[in-house]
Amino acid sequence: MSIRLGIMGYGNLGRGVECAVRQNPDMELKVVFTRRDPASVKVLTEGAKVVSADDAADYKDEIDVLIICGGSATDLPVMTPKYAKLFNCIDSFDTHANIGSHFANVDAAAKESGKVAMISVGWDPGMFSLNRAYAEAVLPEGKAYTFWGKGVSQGHSDAIRRIEGVKDARQYTIPVESALEAVRSGANPDLSTREKHTRECFVVLEEGADAAKVENEIKTMPNYFADYDTTVHFISEEELMRDHAGIPHGGFVIRSGKTGWNKENNHVIEYSLKLDSNPEFTSSVLVAYARAAYRMNKEGQCGCKTVLDVAPAYLSPKSGDELRHELL
Amino acid sequence: MSIRLGIMGYGNLGRGVECAVRQNPDMELKVVFTRRDPASVKVLTEGAKVVSADDAADYKDEIDVLIICGGSATDLPVMTPKYAKLFNCIDSFDTHANIGSHFANVDAAAKESGKVAMISVGWDPGMFSLNRAYAEAVLPEGKAYTFWGKGVSQGHSDAIRRIEGVKDARQYTIPVESALEAVRSGANPDLSTREKHTRECFVVLEEGADAAKVENEIKTMPNYFADYDTTVHFISEEELMRDHAGIPHGGFVIRSGKTGWNKENNHVIEYSLKLDSNPEFTSSVLVAYARAAYRMNKEGQCGCKTVLDVAPAYLSPKSGDELRHELL
Repeated sequence: MSIRLGIMGYGNLGRGVECAVRQNPDMELKVVFTRRDPASVKVLTEGAKVVSADDAADYKDEIDVLIICGGSATDLPVMTPKYAKLFNCIDSFDTHANIGSHFANVDAAAKESGKVAMISVGWDPGMFSLNRAYAEAVLPEGKAYTFWGKGVSQGHSDAIRRIEGVKDARQYTIPVESALEAVRSGANPDLSTREKHTRECFVVLEEGADAAKVENEIKTMPNYFADYDTTVHFISEEELMRDHAGIPHGGFVIRSGKTGWNKENNHVIEYSLKLDSNPEFTSSVLVAYARAAYRMNKEGQCGCKTVLDVAPAYLSPKSGDELRHELL
Repeated sequence: MSIRLGIMGYGNLGRGVECAVRQNPDMELKVVFTRRDPASVKVLTEGAKVVSADDAADYKDEIDVLIICGGSATDLPVMTPKYAKLFNCIDSFDTHANIGSHFANVDAAAKESGKVAMISVGWDPGMFSLNRAYAEAVLPEGKAYTFWGKGVSQGHSDAIRRIEGVKDARQYTIPVESALEAVRSGANPDLSTREKHTRECFVVLEEGADAAKVENEIKTMPNYFADYDTTVHFISEEELMRDHAGIPHGGFVIRSGKTGWNKENNHVIEYSLKLDSNPEFTSSVLVAYARAAYRMNKEGQCGCKTVLDVAPAYLSPKSGDELRHELL
């Protein structure tokens, strides 16, 4: 019998989940919940229903795991504790500073219902977190670095769009190659924010806007750009659509550390992702963890989990024997 | 209270474990078991005992986890099932073809004793296995590649040493850079054995040996060298000692895969290791998994486990809160 999935929210991430489910024959998309008018939402999967989010509770016994595809700022802090009372859940909550309180809220809800709810699943937090944790456990005397990019930062693109005179914008975060090389060499450099990443912005102006003023506002924007070397390119709307329509991303987690009685030997562990589509890759991770949530709950586990709490074998449709034979 | 460890076997791997324990303040090396005369074995750790392997059973209640540092060919198939009857155990069994039967033997012993015994811990099998499993679960429609090196292959060096006229030898396995690049590009190439790795040999001849004959014997040796492009360098014993004393190794696990309704987006996941000391890195992994074995057994688990069965959080001395705060 397939694992029956629901998707809450049908944006980039929800559509990515739908595509990922198609690649996993042990899973089936049963229903997409939406806050829009269900009649206005067309999904790709034959046989999957589109239902108002208000009626989600009616599907309590018809789906095994709900994948919540909402935003971290306002959606997930409400949605995940709410739905963990009804379903095994997965979310991709990525506001690092608030993970502690989100975990506590979701844990209470999921323990009450006896469900498993996994938060902060994706690639960072997610696959990158795993790699930070494994590398630190194996090389305790060392130093870890995370670099992001080259990729589109949605948050930074939005911040530019809010500037007066800006019609549209795309921002790329780019790791500094010389910093990557220094880290890979095992030199354990101390790197400032500016030394790790640069920011490149492609901006479409409203007619009559003052380019110099917009450029200055971008480059001096606190938190977002002021601490970085930022380049601003003004381009036409056509160029933006033609050359910057994708949502690529990726990055690097690198840890170097010493071993030996006198720390005489150096080791470098590097994990990297090069992603054509940030939301589709995140969705693929969500779906693998949905399988884990289903199985762990079947075994009697409940409460809030993160990727750090999940044994890798739970993610694969393969049996223990198959895994040991094919992948170990 | 510290986790009390024992080491079975004090060669390169056992000494590596001793060094790794020193980097983990929650662990303590209590005893080293040896098949040699214990009086002839000096360890580095103050307060650690050296005891005959024959007396291991006497230490049943004095150590929490035994790290078995024997060879995969003949030691571990006997030792791990034997000691799993007495201790939580870790080994680095790496004969891929026999993992199934080793697992079954160890599982029976560990279930009988109620202990946790983890097999095939290290980097391949081990960290590489984890990365193969995670990447496959996340990108099911893709292809995975494992490359080894640049590094010293002990087995291949030994094979050369057995040739008549060879006094000593060191063999390096080297991944082919163009093959790595093709894989990273997402092209999913089909690669023959010869296209993935080359082999470079540094050989010290006995006096009067026939270099041409030795070189030919190496290059045509079935399984070990015949399927590879192999280079042979004849050097002096002094050069071997000076330039090839280390035991570096490493490698790459790369998976590329497609997502999207029509598989329109490509993704590349790459994990790599660059290790100054193969045995010390392996040892560091063994020690992290010893922590996991101890904890999982405390929770009531028993039987044979591999890295695929262990949630990453068990490997770290940090609490769940600390992990979520610092690494997620």
